[in-house]
Amino acid sequence: MSQSSKPHPNADVRMRGFVERVTVENALAWLDNQLDSAPALSAEIAPLGESAGRVLAEDIRSQVNVPDFERAMMDGFAVRSADLQGASAEAPVTLKVIGECFPGQIFDGAISAGCAVRIMTGAPLPTGVDAVLPVEKTKYSETEVHALAELSPGKNFGSVGEDIQVGDIVLSAGRVLRPQDIGVLSSIGQGEVSVLRRPRVRIVVTGDELLPAGSLPEGCQIVDANGPMLSALVARDGGEPNHPGIVPDNRDAILAALREDADVILCSGGSSVGQEDHVPTLLAEHGELEIHGIAMRPAGPLGMGRIDGRLVVLLPGNPVACLWGYDLFASRAVRRLAGRPTDWPYRQIEGELTKEITSPVGRLDYIRVHMKRGQVEPVQATGASVLSSTTRAEGFIIIPTDSSGYSTGSIVNVFLYD
Amino acid sequence: MSQSSKPHPNADVRMRGFVERVTVENALAWLDNQLDSAPALSAEIAPLGESAGRVLAEDIRSQVNVPDFERAMMDGFAVRSADLQGASAEAPVTLKVIGECFPGQIFDGAISAGCAVRIMTGAPLPTGVDAVLPVEKTKYSETEVHALAELSPGKNFGSVGEDIQVGDIVLSAGRVLRPQDIGVLSSIGQGEVSVLRRPRVRIVVTGDELLPAGSLPEGCQIVDANGPMLSALVARDGGEPNHPGIVPDNRDAILAALREDADVILCSGGSSVGQEDHVPTLLAEHGELEIHGIAMRPAGPLGMGRIDGRLVVLLPGNPVACLWGYDLFASRAVRRLAGRPTDWPYRQIEGELTKEITSPVGRLDYIRVHMKRGQVEPVQATGASVLSSTTRAEGFIIIPTDSSGYSTGSIVNVFLYD
Repeated sequence: MSQSSKPHPNADVRMRGFVERVTVENALAWLDNQLDSAPALSAEIAPLGESAGRVLAEDIRSQVNVPDFERAMMDGFAVRSADLQGASAEAPVTLKVIGECFPGQIFDGAISAGCAVRIMTGAPLPTGVDAVLPVEKTKYSETEVHALAELSPGKNFGSVGEDIQVGDIVLSAGRVLRPQDIGVLSSIGQGEVSVLRRPRVRIVVTGDELLPAGSLPEGCQIVDANGPMLSALVARDGGEPNHPGIVPDNRDAILAALREDADVILCSGGSSVGQEDHVPTLLAEHGELEIHGIAMRPAGPLGMGRIDGRLVVLLPGNPVACLWGYDLFASRAVRRLAGRPTDWPYRQIEGELTKEITSPVGRLDYIRVHMKRGQVEPVQATGASVLSSTTRAEGFIIIPTDSSGYSTGSIVNVFLYD
Repeated sequence: MSQSSKPHPNADVRMRGFVERVTVENALAWLDNQLDSAPALSAEIAPLGESAGRVLAEDIRSQVNVPDFERAMMDGFAVRSADLQGASAEAPVTLKVIGECFPGQIFDGAISAGCAVRIMTGAPLPTGVDAVLPVEKTKYSETEVHALAELSPGKNFGSVGEDIQVGDIVLSAGRVLRPQDIGVLSSIGQGEVSVLRRPRVRIVVTGDELLPAGSLPEGCQIVDANGPMLSALVARDGGEPNHPGIVPDNRDAILAALREDADVILCSGGSSVGQEDHVPTLLAEHGELEIHGIAMRPAGPLGMGRIDGRLVVLLPGNPVACLWGYDLFASRAVRRLAGRPTDWPYRQIEGELTKEITSPVGRLDYIRVHMKRGQVEPVQATGASVLSSTTRAEGFIIIPTDSSGYSTGSIVNVFLYD
């Protein structure tokens, strides 16, 4: 294609830009409101070995005691404490050693008065004894043990259910499973767990200038960076990305993509108010375009709405704006739907700004920065199209809506990308 | 099995415990020394879409310019700046609009003096022009544009390679790939990347009292918690866990497992100095048992060494000790071999201790804690066998080797498990 000599019918609208922009705070409030009323995702069964990092769909109540037997807490001798009355280093009491107890094995002999059994940490306590005498409080031979101290009944062994008791809720619905949770679930016999389904996120990338990932850029065509980037971001946030390829830049193809089965729809490109920007008008016609144009830079043309009852986030095609718009709005949606906390995965540290940054009051700015030895320096970049500025940056700072910026030497909060 | 009446030959050694323990600091220094001299893992090719979080095996040098054309940075009109000399709001200069430029399309007309072309952000600049006049500095109709300001040449369009130039190293070897890195790699045409192989970690779990994960505990048998937990920890740290099941508690089976192909071997259970503790003696006989017994609690019986030139970490069978021993030593090894930073993934916050904690000088202690509204309270737990204490805890604190503990009200650093 090439030269077009007829200006499009709505040139004025396109060129005018956004008449009014919503503040970031109001846009977030709208989003949270949508998410508050979103139905919870259904559950699915995951093998225990694949469930770390997943979100529990229901409380897990133990059907068993852990352990289901009394177990020695140290190496020593299983004894009847009454036998040791008066024992001391000066006047040891001598017991006959009649066997050994190992973990996982039931000692099947009877322990009568005056007898003891050597016992290992973790071994079940034999019947007839009521305490474990630590090896440090003995002298012993193969056949005899000399107790150098008295002992109260109940000493040095763990009770049935000391870890978990039948009926205990070991982990509650909503828990993001940690490695040790996997261990505990295994210990109560769970080979699989009911976890929340991951939110399915349809990534709709449009733009006739785009080549699919894996192509080499050619001529005035550029390769889709946003699709692969958004897929990685969605996966990071606990979602299941679906990005089957570039969607042709026409209304029918875009509308069909918007209506595919998904829990959230993220669009990249065509989100602004130009004539090629079909997505907002399609959303307004076939769903609800609730927010369009936000007082922020980059990603000002971001929009949000619903189609067929599902959340749609319109992200700018410029990749820096796409990344920031995702992090600020879409990430929150994916995490909330996935049942996770909305916090970013970025560590925060403070640093001293090496250069003044100004920003108009009323607009929230995202500034990529270098962070070296506590010094925070804005990354030089010509604009929101230079994605490599976000890979050169160690992190970013935010200039809030109500701030006019920071002077040189200010201590600022840096979100680190690592 | 059951009662055994013959005390084992090395009862004295078993019961005596560790004669001397290495400090945590010295054990870490030994480990770091091992890791410094470990050969780097080989590279493998990963599809771009699966490479987020992987570690780059080599520098990535761009073969292309991004973009490979001059592109408009805003909506407006592509003009010859010389035509606009003297233009102002009071004395606009009028140009003829002869077409439109869209992203991804070459405008194939010639722009002669007195002419302009409407242009969209991201579109390639037509030949013959040298600036983009922002729409805000115009009044326009379908056929004419009135420039309300002068313009220097070179204004408002991005140069060839403004993002990335041919030959630029866009990302360096060792980079843990971020979502935006995936975008940048896509933009230069990389459909796959060379990443470090994940370290293969053989998890050797022994103990005749253990049932495999997925079983219900029965009698005095308990279910393997450490294997699934260690697998999740290894995966978290960028390793590839291999835990095919419980290894029978005999020397031949354990030795065979220790000699399986792997980059690191983690053993759980049988790590202490008892007669059932085959692993240290096997390691001493067939490899090197360099460290055994560390001045820490829990996980004091931890050992480290080499077999067939590969690192072996002997972790205690008690699951709390296993978790802590993993985090303190094995995690460091897996991360280093995977090419990642050794930092824990745990956030740190400060809090006020509600209760005195004492610890002998010379020993490092790991204390699970509850953290609520800035108050740090040690978790009540009977011992290292109660794994649920680590799932109830919000995090942990460390009492360093040279500290005798903290008094009530001390401000302590908490590592959060979430």
